[in-house]
Amino acid sequence: MRPHIVLFGDSITEQSFRSGGWGSSLANSYSRKADVLVRGYGGYNTRWALFLLSHIFPPDSTKHPAATTIFFGANDAALLGRTSERQHVPVEEYKNNLKKMVLHLKECSPAMLVVLITPPPIDEEGRKDYAKSLYGDRAMKLPERTNEMAGVYARQCVELAKDLGIHTIDLWSKMQETEGWQKKFLSDGLHLTPEGNAVVHEEVVRVFSEAWLSAEDMPYDFPHHSEINGNSPEEAFQQKCL
Amino acid sequence: MRPHIVLFGDSITEQSFRSGGWGSSLANSYSRKADVLVRGYGGYNTRWALFLLSHIFPPDSTKHPAATTIFFGANDAALLGRTSERQHVPVEEYKNNLKKMVLHLKECSPAMLVVLITPPPIDEEGRKDYAKSLYGDRAMKLPERTNEMAGVYARQCVELAKDLGIHTIDLWSKMQETEGWQKKFLSDGLHLTPEGNAVVHEEVVRVFSEAWLSAEDMPYDFPHHSEINGNSPEEAFQQKCL
Repeated sequence: MRPHIVLFGDSITEQSFRSGGWGSSLANSYSRKADVLVRGYGGYNTRWALFLLSHIFPPDSTKHPAATTIFFGANDAALLGRTSERQHVPVEEYKNNLKKMVLHLKECSPAMLVVLITPPPIDEEGRKDYAKSLYGDRAMKLPERTNEMAGVYARQCVELAKDLGIHTIDLWSKMQETEGWQKKFLSDGLHLTPEGNAVVHEEVVRVFSEAWLSAEDMPYDFPHHSEINGNSPEEAFQQKCL
Repeated sequence: MRPHIVLFGDSITEQSFRSGGWGSSLANSYSRKADVLVRGYGGYNTRWALFLLSHIFPPDSTKHPAATTIFFGANDAALLGRTSERQHVPVEEYKNNLKKMVLHLKECSPAMLVVLITPPPIDEEGRKDYAKSLYGDRAMKLPERTNEMAGVYARQCVELAKDLGIHTIDLWSKMQETEGWQKKFLSDGLHLTPEGNAVVHEEVVRVFSEAWLSAEDMPYDFPHHSEINGNSPEEAFQQKCL
């Protein structure tokens, strides 16, 4: 009945329904208008996510999402030779994997609103502190992710969106516009604080609205209770429900 | 692909995806295992909700929810002759309307886990303060809802669940076990604070788990990233995705 909005991504998407998360805020923004479905897979890079693509978005489905966010890159950008290297995906392959995702979704439904989101910036100090809190002195001295490398992936994501003529949120750049972004938006140098979640929520609502999926312009699924006459409630439901 | 959990109710359900809401917490508890869909209609009583029933839960659907919460009564219990009387539904009709909902869902899918939730208790002082904040001295001196009357509706809800042999959450009683419940759990004498939302979340998770819908016992939809071998990722996906 209602349109679906699917959030496809890694842990930053999987965790988006924690308290103050951008996914639950989005569900609240589209309350009574669209269903928000989370397809977030912590630790996944684009190479692994491709295995899921046709299962999560089956081409022969009778109902495709109205909109999908694709939010990968934080794991692809993990550095070779460091503790998270098994998640690393070369940047050319990352870009190509994203392209496969977009083309698959557009094949499922040419009308689908597809929005690419770049990885967030990395606070290398924050990552180091986090590693120490987990592993103590055994923590590797060298960072497993750098902000510079996350930026390389973010730029490829933005470039791809331009090439394909689809919408993008350059989260990597957007967050760094705010002073103190390192601690304000990131809880462990990579994942989002409630303030960081709010940035993603605002950006997604903005881009959706600039496209054609503005919650304000969408009808309620059923009448607002103030439209219901207590003495003859059936009138309010005649158009939609009788 | 994933089972659906549908939350059907009034404003306390509609608002359940606000920050700290019980709906988003539930979605997070069932992350990667079930989708939580909100069907909350602020201001609705059971009489009006019946108009929506077969639209939200079409009997001929190919996919019925695995579980549904039915959470009405706060508006039905609004008092006659007071400011919210248009929402009032006599308690016998309330009970009968709930019964129609349960029977409809069981007809859709006999295996569906249906959980009735009673209205929360009412903090009459809180309601009065809220009315004053809206209407100043024009606020009616007499409460439009009383805790006693909410309790009458809650007992009928509990009794119906017993009659039908289905699960129930007696929120009215549960919340009043805690000292200071009036301000601790209710923000305006009726709607839930984050602590009140946490009570509902815990109770729903408890009842779902006691039935058969325990998130811990449900499989992940796709492999956890730690099960993926970086050199041969296809192995991890063979069972589910190839």
